[in-house]
Amino acid sequence: MEFLNKKYLFTPGPVPVAPEVLLSMAQPITHHRLPEFSEILKEIREGLKYLFQTKKEVYFFASSGTGAMESAIVNLFSPGDKVIVVVGGKFGQRWLELAQTFNLEPLVIDVTWGKAVKPEDVEKLLKKNPDVKGVLIQACETSTGVKHPVKEIAEILKDKEVVLVVDAISALGVYELPMDKWGLDVVITGSQKALSLPPGLSFIAFSDKAYALAEKSKLPKYYFSFKKEKKAYQKDTTAFTPAISLLIGLRKMLKRIREIGLERLFRHYQTLSLACRKAILALNLEIFPEIPSESLTVIKAPDGLNTGELLKFLRSKLGVIFAGGQDHLKGKILRITHMGDQSPFDLLIALSALEMGLNLFGYQVSFGKGIKAAEEVLFDYVKKEYL
Amino acid sequence: MEFLNKKYLFTPGPVPVAPEVLLSMAQPITHHRLPEFSEILKEIREGLKYLFQTKKEVYFFASSGTGAMESAIVNLFSPGDKVIVVVGGKFGQRWLELAQTFNLEPLVIDVTWGKAVKPEDVEKLLKKNPDVKGVLIQACETSTGVKHPVKEIAEILKDKEVVLVVDAISALGVYELPMDKWGLDVVITGSQKALSLPPGLSFIAFSDKAYALAEKSKLPKYYFSFKKEKKAYQKDTTAFTPAISLLIGLRKMLKRIREIGLERLFRHYQTLSLACRKAILALNLEIFPEIPSESLTVIKAPDGLNTGELLKFLRSKLGVIFAGGQDHLKGKILRITHMGDQSPFDLLIALSALEMGLNLFGYQVSFGKGIKAAEEVLFDYVKKEYL
Repeated sequence: MEFLNKKYLFTPGPVPVAPEVLLSMAQPITHHRLPEFSEILKEIREGLKYLFQTKKEVYFFASSGTGAMESAIVNLFSPGDKVIVVVGGKFGQRWLELAQTFNLEPLVIDVTWGKAVKPEDVEKLLKKNPDVKGVLIQACETSTGVKHPVKEIAEILKDKEVVLVVDAISALGVYELPMDKWGLDVVITGSQKALSLPPGLSFIAFSDKAYALAEKSKLPKYYFSFKKEKKAYQKDTTAFTPAISLLIGLRKMLKRIREIGLERLFRHYQTLSLACRKAILALNLEIFPEIPSESLTVIKAPDGLNTGELLKFLRSKLGVIFAGGQDHLKGKILRITHMGDQSPFDLLIALSALEMGLNLFGYQVSFGKGIKAAEEVLFDYVKKEYL
Repeated sequence: MEFLNKKYLFTPGPVPVAPEVLLSMAQPITHHRLPEFSEILKEIREGLKYLFQTKKEVYFFASSGTGAMESAIVNLFSPGDKVIVVVGGKFGQRWLELAQTFNLEPLVIDVTWGKAVKPEDVEKLLKKNPDVKGVLIQACETSTGVKHPVKEIAEILKDKEVVLVVDAISALGVYELPMDKWGLDVVITGSQKALSLPPGLSFIAFSDKAYALAEKSKLPKYYFSFKKEKKAYQKDTTAFTPAISLLIGLRKMLKRIREIGLERLFRHYQTLSLACRKAILALNLEIFPEIPSESLTVIKAPDGLNTGELLKFLRSKLGVIFAGGQDHLKGKILRITHMGDQSPFDLLIALSALEMGLNLFGYQVSFGKGIKAAEEVLFDYVKKEYL
C-alpha cells in the first residue's frame, strides 16, 4: 500500500484536474438542447477563442485528441494529396498513420527522437514538392518533450498555398502559440494535457486558408465534419450529443484560464519547467530533448538504471506516477509533466520521489540537492509574482 | 491570488480529509432510523473500539470536541467536586472553564506553556487533597504541541478512586494511547484533528471506575448524557438525530484506520514528526515544546520575525496555511500539523513554504537544507516500510 493511499499524477496526459473543475462536473446532468445549455456553449466558444488566440470559431468533438487530428485530415485533404509529415516521436507517427489511412501521399521528415525539426528541412522539401498541400506537425512532441519550431515553419508557409496543421495537445495554454498572429492554419488540442481537464474532448480551429482548402476536400467525413458543427453553432447547439459533464468542466476551466490570464499561465509553466530542469542538472542527470517544451521535463535515464522497476516502485509504493519512454525509448527516459493542476510545490514532490527512487535503484544522489536548485527558481518567481 | 488556487492545510485542526472520505460523505442523505443505518452504526461502534483500544462502548455526539469534554464533566461530577486541572495551554484552560462553569472546585496545576506536567506534581496535589474526584488533562496540548505524561499519571491513579479524564482530540490515532491497557478512565476525541475528518463529531468512552463515579453525578445533563446514548445503543440507534454525513465519513475513516492498522499509523506520524523536527533543527530553528507530540510540530519563532505577516503571506499568496500561537504565544510560535490526510511528501511542501517565507521575512535560511534533513528521515522510513 502506498503512503496512506495518496496519489500524485505526473504523467504527460492525463494530468491532475483542479478540484473545483471536478466538482463542477459532478453536478446533475442537464439536457444539451435546453436554452440554458446554449448559453453555456456561447461562453465556451468565447473562452476557446481566448485560449487559441483566434477570431475564428473553435469546434470540438466528444473524442480523444486523435479525433481532432483525424478531423483535420478528413476535412482538409483529398486522396493522393501530398503532405509533409514531421516524424520525431510517437505523435508524429500518428500523423503519418492518419495520412496513410486516408490515402494521402505523405513525405516524411524523419527527425531523430529528442531532436526538433529544422525549418530549413521543411523549406527544402517544399521546394522539391511545390504541390504539397499541408505540413503536419506537433507543437510539442509529448513522447520526447521536444518543442518544434512551428512559428518559423508558419513563416515559411505564409505566402504559399500550404496549410500548417499543428497538433498542440500538449502545448496550447502552456506556452505562447497565438494562432492568428503566427498564421497557424489548423490548431488542434485535447482536454487531458495542456488544457488540464479529464480526457474526452478534442478541439480544432481553421484559418481562412484552411477553410479554402477544405472546400476542395474529397474525403468522406461525418462525425468529424466541421461543417456539421459550424451549422449547429449557428443555432447555438452542437451537431451530436456533446459530452455534457466534460463541457461543464471545460467552461469552468476556460473561466479559470481567463481569470489567471494566458501570460501569467505561461510564466507559471516557464517557472515549473525551469525549476525542474535546474534540479535535474543539479542531480547530474541530463535533459533528453534538444529544445525542451515547458509542458514536461524528459530526463535521460542514467546508464544501467532499471527505469521500469524504478517507475513501478514510485507508482505502487509511493503513489508518485511518472511516465517512461515509448518504443525504442523504453527504459531510456523518464517523463515528468508540468501540465495540469500543479502548484510549484507539487514539483517538489516529484523531485523528492525521484531523489529517493534514484538512490534506491543504484544511482546515488545527495538528498535535497535537486530540490534546492528548484526552490531557488521558485523563490525568484514568488518574489516577482507576489511581492 | 495564490499559486493557481491550490491550498495546503497544515493547521492542527481542522486538517485535510482524504478524498475517498469526502466523496463517501457526498452520497445522498439516508434516514437514521432505517435498518440499514443500524448496520452502519454497528460497524462504527466496532471501529471506535479499535481506535480507542477499549472493550467499552464509545459514545458520540453531533458537536465539536468541546461537547465531549462537557459530557465528561456533566456525566461524572457533582457541584463542589474537587478536580485537578492541568493547565498548560489553551485546552487546559478549557477544562478549567468547564469545571468553573459547572461549579466544580478546580485545583489548578499551572504548567508553563510549552512544558509538560510533572506526574509527581499531580501526585503531591492528590496527597494534599485526598477528596479529589478526577484529574482533567490533555494527552496532547494542541496550543503548545506538548505531550503530557498521561500513562504515568494513570499509574498514579490506578488504585485510587480518582478518574483520569483525557482529552485526546489531537492524540488518539496519532500515537499509542491504549485506553484499557493504560487504565485511562475517560477518553475523549473529536473528528477534526487526529481522526482526520471534518469537524462536527465528538467521542467519549468510560472505564468501569468512571461509570461508577457517574452513578453519583448530580449535575443536570440532557444532550450530552451518555445514558441516553447507552439506551439508544441497545436498540442499535442514537438518542438524537446524528450527523449522518459525518458518520458515513467516519465509517470510511475507521475502515481505513483498521486497514492501515494503528501500529503502522503511529509509525507514519512518528516519521512525519521526526522528519519535520530534523528539518527545523537543520534550519537552526528551535522546537517549542519540551516533550513534543507527534501530532504537530511547534516552532519557536526567531526573534524579530513578524510571524503574523509571514503566516498571512504563506496563506494568502502561496496557499499554505499554518497556525500561529494563541494568547501570549501570539507571534512567538508557528504550528505545522502532521495530522490529517498527509503523505510524507506533503511535509516537504510545508517545509519549502517555510524556507521561502523565512527568507522573505528576514530570517536567512539556505534552500533545501531543511528539506534534505527531512528527506533523509523519510528515505529511511521508505526503505523500512516498503522494501
